Order: sequence, then structure tokens, then C-alpha cells
Amino acid sequence: METEIKLTYDQAMALAIDVAKAGAPYVSPNPLVGCVILSAENKLLSTGCHERYGEAHAEINAIKNIPEKDLQDCKIFVTLEPCAHEGKTASCAKKLAEYKIKKVIYGLVDPNPLVAGQGAKILQSAGIETEEYQGALKSDLEDLAEIFLKNFRHKKTFVALKVASSLDGQIALKTGESQWITGPASREYVHELRSWYDGLIIGSNTIVTDNPSLNIRHPRIKKENKLVILDSKGKLLKSIIDGKKYKFMEVHHKKNIYFATNEDMKSDYQIILFKDLNHLMVQLWDLQIKSVFVEGGAATYSSFIQSQLVDRFHVFINPSLIGANNGLSWTKDLTIPQLDKKIQLKNIKMRLFESDIYLTGRH
Amino acid sequence: METEIKLTYDQAMALAIDVAKAGAPYVSPNPLVGCVILSAENKLLSTGCHERYGEAHAEINAIKNIPEKDLQDCKIFVTLEPCAHEGKTASCAKKLAEYKIKKVIYGLVDPNPLVAGQGAKILQSAGIETEEYQGALKSDLEDLAEIFLKNFRHKKTFVALKVASSLDGQIALKTGESQWITGPASREYVHELRSWYDGLIIGSNTIVTDNPSLNIRHPRIKKENKLVILDSKGKLLKSIIDGKKYKFMEVHHKKNIYFATNEDMKSDYQIILFKDLNHLMVQLWDLQIKSVFVEGGAATYSSFIQSQLVDRFHVFINPSLIGANNGLSWTKDLTIPQLDKKIQLKNIKMRLFESDIYLTGRH
Repeated sequence: METEIKLTYDQAMALAIDVAKAGAPYVSPNPLVGCVILSAENKLLSTGCHERYGEAHAEINAIKNIPEKDLQDCKIFVTLEPCAHEGKTASCAKKLAEYKIKKVIYGLVDPNPLVAGQGAKILQSAGIETEEYQGALKSDLEDLAEIFLKNFRHKKTFVALKVASSLDGQIALKTGESQWITGPASREYVHELRSWYDGLIIGSNTIVTDNPSLNIRHPRIKKENKLVILDSKGKLLKSIIDGKKYKFMEVHHKKNIYFATNEDMKSDYQIILFKDLNHLMVQLWDLQIKSVFVEGGAATYSSFIQSQLVDRFHVFINPSLIGANNGLSWTKDLTIPQLDKKIQLKNIKMRLFESDIYLTGRH
Repeated sequence: METEIKLTYDQAMALAIDVAKAGAPYVSPNPLVGCVILSAENKLLSTGCHERYGEAHAEINAIKNIPEKDLQDCKIFVTLEPCAHEGKTASCAKKLAEYKIKKVIYGLVDPNPLVAGQGAKILQSAGIETEEYQGALKSDLEDLAEIFLKNFRHKKTFVALKVASSLDGQIALKTGESQWITGPASREYVHELRSWYDGLIIGSNTIVTDNPSLNIRHPRIKKENKLVILDSKGKLLKSIIDGKKYKFMEVHHKKNIYFATNEDMKSDYQIILFKDLNHLMVQLWDLQIKSVFVEGGAATYSSFIQSQLVDRFHVFINPSLIGANNGLSWTKDLTIPQLDKKIQLKNIKMRLFESDIYLTGRH
């Protein structure tokens, strides 16, 4: 579909970033990638994204939407350097080299130093100009690929933390009373966020007090995550072996439920024996769980933050006050030694869900 | 200045609300009022506001900007019903009735039931149509006049509370360590907010630990507020009588400094003897302090909220974590009995100051 509106480089790259997000539930362990094709006159011709692991890459999806003649002298914006290698799919760089494309502008160089720049070289050899994007959206491009980049650079599982609190940082009452703090629109978005990550981590205490289902309930997303329950003393698992039932057991396959505990037990569920959170994260990596979504409770939040394991924060704030005297602070066990050591979130993005504020940033 | 752009009723009223705010530091005890004049074709002709107590009202300031002939068949939008009575200035309704105006659209009816609708009647008698605005901005119109409305309806001082916290609701460390949590842009706006209220309330503990100046330091505002120091046991005042010096003493006239205490003492400052916050508020009303800005610290915030005295919250949130274990929560002494009694803020407005979130809402 051709429009009369001309896009700038920044607008095209912003659109490519946005388009990429459609793949969030399904691309793991690949990166999210989006692609936008502009005509010689900078009019929007096509978009595409990497939709699902094992299926076509973003560039290929964008190209297949339009007749080959339209690619003559076009510009292709892609959030990550087109791949040089043949993997599950053919090399994107080689595929693009078959067309009479004017220029390829890519957001990030391939993070693998062994192949970085090779995709660009294949294109250049075919007479296609290439340019690494250096505009205002560089941070957003890093954010888009953050799970993949953490995985690739550090060989570690990416950790996102989600909290829903009052304006004064409370998530429940100390008495144990707990109910939804944020509204329905925030909560629907949490289900979408759950789908972005391979696994969901929850403290056993939250299961005992709230009995949550912890599956993904979203009108447009079909996916079952791994569920990792922090149950260090094994009390919850023992009670389940003894016959206690919880909602999460009804909505997850047994193969997707992991109990992280200090004590080995015979049970129908997978057991991860762990000493501390760092040890747990190593084992999750070995289990191919490339990203996790930590959903609480307060002790779990504090331990993950204190251990410096959190890569991204998703914070929903309802404009209400609960009071810290009788309230449960989500950082109740977190300690910083002095104020200039406070944990500063970076590259903040914000939006509203009804009257809730949603804020996300990376550590 | 005439433009080619036609404004809708909502746009004209939104502009009138915005224009009105220029008077915020200076109109007390009058309400903030803004006025917008549109031509017969709904083009913007003029704006005006009530700038300062004792000076011209909004309608008069808007009219005087344009030649009388331009008023022919114009529409006047004003945030509050034009006044019927002669006070410090002549009746606005009578003044408007002198012109060939087509219609006056007012945001709120005069809150005084004895004169409500009289301004409108004067206009109607002169052949001018009148209409009480009933659009989407009704809540914003109430917010604009909130100090005046509280004063008039309840004969009580309006209370605004300002806090600057981390994302997890902390304002300092328990150790007493304290430093700016939010950035320079937020802090400049706090000086503007201080100027909107007749008085500033601070706990003596904050003076001892932070030694703040507590005056208004803003490039465009010249005003000295009353300063009310909550010093219930009189410890701070005793130390000052004994020769201790603090910054606030250098930048405020003695006549503007009040110590609220339980114990009478001989000093150069005004003393307010009070039993509890409700008793204090009665005395501030008697002293003609029609609005106050509560700036902390944590114990003061909690007492005001717990006593249900806060009308408006101004909350600045820096996207950082301090941790509740060693941190000082701004609602540390606030208690709600159960979660469905949480204190919900209403008619929320939000904006960013650099990376800080500013949120305001009424109780």
C-alpha cells in the first residue's frame, strides 16, 4: 500500500521498532526484528517482522508483501543488521542482494563479533549501499533486542521484574490482605508482558496467599510459559505432594512447572536445586529459559534487585495511597548503603492505562 | 491578534483555564479566573486573566486588549460566572452588558447561592445569551477554582501536599541521610507551586535535618509566603531562642514565620498554640491563611493524610529505587484498615520533568 506521506529515517526506524514487537511472544531465542521499506521518494511501501522462531525473518516478510518491481531503488530499514549466515532460514543479506535495492539502513550491528559487518559486506558486494543508523532511537533499538543481546553477550538469562503498587510503593497489607491494586487495562497488559518472556518466576508465599493462575490470558496471544516457583524450603511442594491443590496446577502442563528449592524431593514436577539466585539463574540458562518475568512477592522482588539481577523493570502505579505503616512495600528487604547509590532506571518509557501509570526502564 | 484558526467551545475553555493560571501566585483570596474571546466566526480575538488581588478581573483584561468594534457578536468564555456585585472592582456582568456581545459561556456558576445566576441575569437583560459550560472540562474548572471553592463552601483552609520520592515511595534514608531525590526541573516547578499557596507547612524535624530555606526562588515569581513550622514540643523554637541559626530565618521576614506548638514561649516569632492538626487548621483560617502547601517530612505527611485534611496531592517521582528496608517511606505512619479503604486520588493530571514523573490529583 503506497501512501503520499514521506517518512524520515527516524520515522521509518521508529515504525520498524514498533512493527518488531508483534513477534515478542514467539521469537525466543531469536531477537525481535522489524523492517520497513520506503520507496525512492521515501514513501512507505511495506513493513514486516520476525513473527516466530523458525519462520521467516523480518526483511523477507517485508519484501514478500510487495511486487518485485517496487523494490527498484527502495530503502530498507531493519532494526538489526541482516544476517549473513544460513541457519533455520536462508541468509537475509544474500536474499536482499538479489534485488535492485538502493540502500539498507540497519539499527544495530550484528552483536556476534565473528560475523558483525558480514551482512553489510554481502550487500555492498551486490552494489547496495549500507548504513548503520546513528539517530535518536539507538537506545530504543538496544531495548528492542535486549533479551537477545544479554543472552548473546553474557550467556545469561534476561530478567524483567513487574510490580503493581500504590503511589506510595505498597503492594498489599502486612496483615496478608491482598487484592488488585491496579485496574483492568493494566492487568490485561501484564498478560501481554508475560508472553514476552520464556518463564515466569513467583515466590511460594504469593501462591499460598493469593492462589494465582499465572498463565497467559490474553485475547490475541496463545502461549504457555514455564513457571518457576521459588520454594527454597520446599514447604509448598511438600504440601502439594500431601494433596494440597492450587490454581496454577490446573492451567499449566506439569512439564512447564519448576520448583526451585534447597531440598530434593520426589514429585511429578521438575525440581531445580539451588543455593542462591545467581545459582538459580545459571540453571535456568542451562534449561534454555532465556528470559524470565519476576512477579513477586515483596521478598522475591527485593532479593532479585539486591542481587543486581534485574535487567528491566515494569512498574504499574495506581494513584492511591495505602500507607507504609500497615502496608507491604515491594522493596521491603532492599537496602542501599547511601542515597547516591540509589538504583537509577534508564531509558524510561511511560504510558497510561486508564488512571494507572505504567513506567518501564532498564537497570 | 486575529488568527485563521477556529476554536471549539472545549478548546476555548481549555485556553481560558490555562490563561487563568498566570494569576496563581497573586490572586488569593480571589479565585483564579481566565477569559477567552472568540469572534462570531470562532476565531481567537483575545485572552485575559485575573492577575492579582484588587486588580481587574479576567473579562475586563480580555476586553481591554481589543478595539470595541471587534466585540460585535463575539463569544466570551470565562471560567467562572461573571460577578454581579461591586467589590474591589466594578461588576463584570454590568461591564460586559455595555457591549454588543453575542454570548457569554461560563465554566462554573458563582458558588455563592445568594448571587448564583445573577451575573448571568444581568447579561440576559442586556440581550446577551448566556450558557453554563457542560463539557468535558467541568472537573478541570473545579480544579482551577478549588482553593476558592473550598474556602467559600467550607470556610476552611485548602491543603495541598507535595512530595518528591523514589519509585518505591522513599524520600530519604532512615539514617537521616537526605538529598534531592528529583532533578532540577522538578525542583524549579516546586518553587512555582509554593507560590500558589498562602502558606508553607514544614515539620521541625525537616528543618533540623535538612536546614532548607523554604522561600520561593523562581525566575518569574516574586512573593514571600507565610511559613508555618510544626514544632509541637517547641524544641526547635527553644533552640532558636538559645541562639541556634537556620537558613529559613535569613530569607523570611519574622512577621511571616509561625511556630505551631503546644507550649507558649516568648520569642520574636508568631506562636500558634494548637492541640492537633484540625485545631491548627482552624487557627490558620482565622489568620487569613486560605491555602497551605505541606512539604514534609514523613511524619507530617502521614498526619495530614491520616487526618483527612489533604485536598490536593502533588507527587514527583524519580525513577529510582531506594529500598524500604533502610529507606524512609513518605507514608510511614499512615494506616488504612483494609485495602478497599485505600486513598484514591481523582482527576489525575500528569507530566514529565526530565526523567521525573509529576502527578497531581485531588483527594
